[in-house]
Amino acid sequence: MWIQKEIQLKPQARGFHLITSEILSQVTELQNVKIGMISVFIKHTSASLTINENADPTVRDDFEAYFSRAVPEDEPYYKHMDEGSDDLPAHIKGSILDFNLTIPITNGQLNMGIWQGIYLCEHRNSGGSRKVVVTINGD
Amino acid sequence: MWIQKEIQLKPQARGFHLITSEILSQVTELQNVKIGMISVFIKHTSASLTINENADPTVRDDFEAYFSRAVPEDEPYYKHMDEGSDDLPAHIKGSILDFNLTIPITNGQLNMGIWQGIYLCEHRNSGGSRKVVVTINGD
Amino acid sequence: MWIQKEIQLKPQARGFHLITSEILSQVTELQNVKIGMISVFIKHTSASLTINENADPTVRDDFEAYFSRAVPEDEPYYKHMDEGSDDLPAHIKGSILDFNLTIPITNGQLNMGIWQGIYLCEHRNSGGSRKVVVTINGD
Repeated sequence: MWIQKEIQLKPQARGFHLITSEILSQVTELQNVKIGMISVFIKHTSASLTINENADPTVRDDFEAYFSRAVPEDEPYYKHMDEGSDDLPAHIKGSILDFNLTIPITNGQLNMGIWQGIYLCEHRNSGGSRKVVVTINGD
Repeated sequence: MWIQKEIQLKPQARGFHLITSEILSQVTELQNVKIGMISVFIKHTSASLTINENADPTVRDDFEAYFSRAVPEDEPYYKHMDEGSDDLPAHIKGSILDFNLTIPITNGQLNMGIWQGIYLCEHRNSGGSRKVVVTINGD
Repeated sequence: MWIQKEIQLKPQARGFHLITSEILSQVTELQNVKIGMISVFIKHTSASLTINENADPTVRDDFEAYFSRAVPEDEPYYKHMDEGSDDLPAHIKGSILDFNLTIPITNGQLNMGIWQGIYLCEHRNSGGSRKVVVTINGD
């Protein structure tokens, strides 16, 4: 059984945002899958995805603070500067994090840890609405 | 054909640990898969997975040394400090590395390079036993 | 439907290289897949894969410049030095980036964003030809 959908995510400010329920609400077919996998793939190069702690919002603040220090803007050696100071760092952060998440499905639910959630990582100052392709394969 | 199992890994000290055989010994059904994929998904946010060199143990030592410098503890700007100095860096390291590994299966075996092995990346000082979900899909 | 192939990539200089068409030209069976997933898995620990901007080549130059600063050679605390100054940093960069890419297939094509391309990340000075396993599963 294969299910595939393109989902338009709500626009988000620069930073890290919990989107587990925004995605799950749009793929209710998941409930019929006993064993399988879900892939969530983001069709951009300046926003990305990761999994992390779904409880304390300060984790997401600290992620934005850390990654914006680890990949600074306006380094003198950057060549790709035409699209603004936040653009090249956004590409690098995307590749450090993930453009695709693969998560097991068990008995109609994501089989994640209880503290795990899906993050949209918006690396641009004004990234707008982002598109993901969700693909479910299972029994 | 779908096979799915939850595996409890042996507790490990903080650092990087080769766990290829610990995982393979628990999914002997793999031998019956001619072409397919295996997913190994860790159900935590402060331990993670990666693939790397399976021969010289100093590579694993250097990984611990590198990542603990790249993501330092107790940065003055961190807000999420309630669970100890090693907690927030553990979350960040997890997202830099991987929570899921996807590896091809060919003729009943993992089709990895001869130098590749699966690492458990234990980012907490006392993380305890970690749980992974192994899902095999194939012909 | 399962398709699996081992592909030998052209040798590349140290740096980041767009290889989308090099891969697609060798898996023309993709055209027959209506919904599915492709996995591209690299069988090495000192070269890796990522997805990023497929238009401006300075993005790839900036990636090489950034990652070679973020993971410097010859750090005094490195222990794994026998295979040359570029070897241990290559292993670390590989784990920060990806050894496997999973990309959705829709109507016989990769369902990536229009600006997304597949990069080979060659982290060694003389890495030689690299091998990838391409696995397609779909309807």
